[in-house]
Parts: sequence; structure tokens; C-alpha cells
Amino acid sequence: MNADRSSLRVGWIGTGVMGAPMARHLLEAGYPVSLFNRTPQRAAPLIKSGATWCDSPSAVAEASDVVFTIVGYPNDVRHVWAGEQGLLSGSRPGQVFVDMTTSSPQLAEELAESAARRGISALDAPVSGGDVGARQGTLSIMVGGKHAAFEQLQPLWQCLGKTIVHHGPPGSGQHAKLVNQTIVAGNMIGLCEALLYAQQAGLQLERVLQSISQGAASSWALQNLAPRLLNMDLQPGFFVQHFVKDMGLVLAEAERMRLVLPGLSLVKQLYTSVLSHGGATLGTQALVIALAEMSNTTWRGLSPASDA
Amino acid sequence: MNADRSSLRVGWIGTGVMGAPMARHLLEAGYPVSLFNRTPQRAAPLIKSGATWCDSPSAVAEASDVVFTIVGYPNDVRHVWAGEQGLLSGSRPGQVFVDMTTSSPQLAEELAESAARRGISALDAPVSGGDVGARQGTLSIMVGGKHAAFEQLQPLWQCLGKTIVHHGPPGSGQHAKLVNQTIVAGNMIGLCEALLYAQQAGLQLERVLQSISQGAASSWALQNLAPRLLNMDLQPGFFVQHFVKDMGLVLAEAERMRLVLPGLSLVKQLYTSVLSHGGATLGTQALVIALAEMSNTTWRGLSPASDA
Repeated sequence: MNADRSSLRVGWIGTGVMGAPMARHLLEAGYPVSLFNRTPQRAAPLIKSGATWCDSPSAVAEASDVVFTIVGYPNDVRHVWAGEQGLLSGSRPGQVFVDMTTSSPQLAEELAESAARRGISALDAPVSGGDVGARQGTLSIMVGGKHAAFEQLQPLWQCLGKTIVHHGPPGSGQHAKLVNQTIVAGNMIGLCEALLYAQQAGLQLERVLQSISQGAASSWALQNLAPRLLNMDLQPGFFVQHFVKDMGLVLAEAERMRLVLPGLSLVKQLYTSVLSHGGATLGTQALVIALAEMSNTTWRGLSPASDA
Repeated sequence: MNADRSSLRVGWIGTGVMGAPMARHLLEAGYPVSLFNRTPQRAAPLIKSGATWCDSPSAVAEASDVVFTIVGYPNDVRHVWAGEQGLLSGSRPGQVFVDMTTSSPQLAEELAESAARRGISALDAPVSGGDVGARQGTLSIMVGGKHAAFEQLQPLWQCLGKTIVHHGPPGSGQHAKLVNQTIVAGNMIGLCEALLYAQQAGLQLERVLQSISQGAASSWALQNLAPRLLNMDLQPGFFVQHFVKDMGLVLAEAERMRLVLPGLSLVKQLYTSVLSHGGATLGTQALVIALAEMSNTTWRGLSPASDA
């Protein structure tokens, strides 16, 4: 396989808030892109920009040398890769398939085995950096799978992200992403409990942020989400429902490894309470709503109903 | 009271890892400093540099216009301020007493009331920034108490720290510091669980840090303590036993406010397990040891016994 822009045909499945700008980077870099999305109208802007519509993942595989998938949940990944009219059904030896969904490491291993039996190289390559990172091409891409396949795709990774690291065998890209999400879970519970404490203690929240933002408490969450919380802005950077999915993946893997993660377990439960309050599509900072409810209070007067 | 360097007499009680470099800044700025410490030999270097030894907190109060205290636990604060031969017993109207220990907001309120009855202004002014911040004069100082007294001490604050914020009435400096510690607790559980997950999943930890250190997982803890953990370095920046004390203060205040903090409660319990394993004077990153033990594994082969 040659990664030259004129001769390498790229397939893309999943044109959501992350996938659409990522696919666009490849299109703009000069790669021919064939694509499929469960909801066709979301792919329309890319088609307009020159991408070719395909009627199924299988058809994308037939039209491409390398195929990227970035969909919602592990079940979606399984369906897109291994279902009827899935990628693997349209595959031929020598192709590379890459799943960029944050998904199950165990599933990544399974799919890599299925792919290998057909002579396909499978990579798991979830990303962090959010929709902003996707648009700006500054994502961190965490890759698991054969090193040769990883290297082969370097020109493509460079279009999509900034920090590109190969972590090891199939599943290890997913593991690395789950490490990231586990840290985020701790940072979120600390931030939301702390701000709620500050409110209940009668502190002026802006002054509190001034005192604590440069020291041992500092974090991306403190810098980026605390100001949103002070403005009573629960709009999503990252959906609660996706974060709950990710934490479930961590706990499932931890269970397999007989690893006790008491903090993450608790945070997932508390986010489940956010779901119970109708907050599935709020941003992860909405954790503060569930915490406030436990104490029969509110965050700055917000009720879940008023924002969900 | 005049804050002029020649005429303002400063008292200092507590010359530990934080207090000693802080008192030295005032001495080097030209203020005459009278001091007391429970363990006299720890004050010797400052005496050698020109500070005057006093035999009790009461004697420090008699010799000073402004007195700072920075000791270990709330009971120490109470003893130094209100005990026999305490600060208040040697006080006279018009003085300002400042407690910089991380201590109880409720105690700060009580002491401020006792002080006010004697015509003394009391400030609570805990700090963050650690021993490095104390030495470099870059601490964040969070001040509660009367605004006039806070303003009066501006020349002194400037010698001790960089970020100096008045938060409100007595106790509010302590509240602000406890907000900081609550965030740190979340950041620590996230970091330690995540690194343990990474180890158990067989990832190369340096590569993981490369992938996650710039994004949504980033924090002071990730930047500063993860590298120590990778080097199996559990030496203290901040003692486990002091962090447990601080979390106890948060939970006591939360109880008073009927505020539920499930995350912080759990983290305190897990740090109690670090104490159970003999880790009182290890650094807070030693949380990973207790977590590893829960899963019948170790962090990179470390046992608590080998490091406590």
C-alpha cells in the first residue's frame, strides 16, 4: 500500500461532531474519500465538498485502501465492522481498518483477530481533544495494533492530529484513552464537589478561582469547565452519556483485570444520577447538578429540568 | 499601626518546612522578627540570622505588633492562640494576629471572636504552593477576616506570596483553602487509579503520559506527581498525614453545612488506608500503594513497608 495522496483511497464511516471535521482534513489534503454514515444527511456537506457516498460500510471497504470508523458505542463499532454489510464483508487482504471510536479494548482485540484472519491490519486509534481538536487537527491519537500498519498511516495521522503515539498491540490505544478518561473522572468529581462546597460556604467563586487556579489544584477541568459552571453554562463540550459509556468501558476492563477502582466506580454512579435527572446530553460539568440534589440544594439556582 | 519596616515588629510562631522560609523572607525584608517554635532547635538558623527568640507565644505577642502562626493541626492553633501562655494572653488592643495553618474555618471564626473581644484583629490566611512556594515567595495566600486588617498587612503579604486574595469574613480564607484541597483529592484519585489501570493493562507508562498530558486529563498532579510515580518516588512534597487532616476539615465543615461530598469521603477513606500501611509521612502520591493493595498487586513492585 502506498500512502501517496493521489493513489491512496480513504474510506470514512461516521460523520458526527468528531468524524466530520476529521474526514474533511483528509479530503482537503487531497485524498479521495468514500464515506458512509447511518444518518445520510449528516454526510451531505462532505459529499458537497467532493467525498463519494457509499450505501454501506461494505461498499466503503470495497472502494478504499484504508478505512476509518468513528461512531458512537461499541455495539455500533461491532455492527459497522462485523455486521451484515459490514466493513469486513467487503474487505480484501492488505487493507488497513482503523477504529477511532472510544470503545472496548476487548472488542478491539476481537476485531483485530477477525481482521487478521482475512489478511487485514486493524488499528484501534481513539482520540482526545474534543470537537475543537478535531476541527483544528490537534487531536491526541492513541494507537494500538501492528506497528508496521501504524507507520504506514503516518501521512494520514498527521492530517488528523498533533500527538500521535503507538501504544502496543490491539486494544492498547483504547486502554490509553481509558486511562485518560479515568483521570478526567477524578478531576470532575473534585472540581464539582469543591465548587459546591465553595458556594455553600458563601465564598465568592471568582475569587476562589483566582486563589487556586495556578497551584496544586490546577487542571484542564478547572481552567475550562469552572468558568462555564460559574456562568451556569451546562452546554456540552463532552456529553454526559458518552462519558458514562467510557467509564463503563473502564470498569468492564478493570473487572477483567481484577482491578478495584473505587473512585471511578463512584463517579460513574454519580453521573448515572445526572442521567436520571435528564442530563444525558448536557456537558460533563453537569455533575454538579446531581451533587447539589443530594444535599437538597442547587448549583446557582439551576435545576436539571431547566437545562436538560 | 504603621507597616513601615523599621517600626513594625513582627512575631512568628512555627518554623517548620513552610514557616521557616516564610519568616526568613520577612527578616530579609528588614522587619525585626520575634519567634517561638515548639522545637527550639528548628528556630536556630533564623536566630542566627537575627531573629529574637521568645520563650512562649505570649512573649511573642508582647514583643510584636503583628504575629503570624503556622503550625500543624487545629489543636496546635488553639493551643498557640488561646492556651496558657498563648498569644491572646500576651495581647494588647490594636494588634493583628494571623493564622496561616490550614485549619478549621469554625475555629478561625471562634478565635476571631475571642480576639475581637480583646481589641485584636484576627485573620485566617492559609497558603498553597508548598515548600517550594514558601522558599520562592510565590505562595497563594487566602485571607479571611476584616478587610482593613488585610489591607494593613499588604507589605507583609507581598514578602510572603504572589497571589493574595481576601475572601471575606473570618474563616473564609480557610474555606478557600479547603476548596483547593477538595479539588486536589479528586485529581489524586483520578491520577492514581488511572496509572494503576495503565500498569495492569500492560501499557508503557511514559507513552501514556505523552498521549494524555496536554489534553482534558491535564493537571498539576499529572505534570508533577505522575513522573515521580513512574520513578517509584513516594517522597513527600506534601505529607499524607497532613492531607488526611485537611480532608477531615472539609468533611467536618460539609457536615455542618449538610453538604454531601461522596467523592471526598471516599478519597479520605483511601488515604486512611495509606496511613494503615505506614505511609503517614510519604507524599500524597502514595495513594497508589493503597489502591494497588486492594487489588492484591503492587505499584511497580513497591511495597508500603519498603518506603514508609
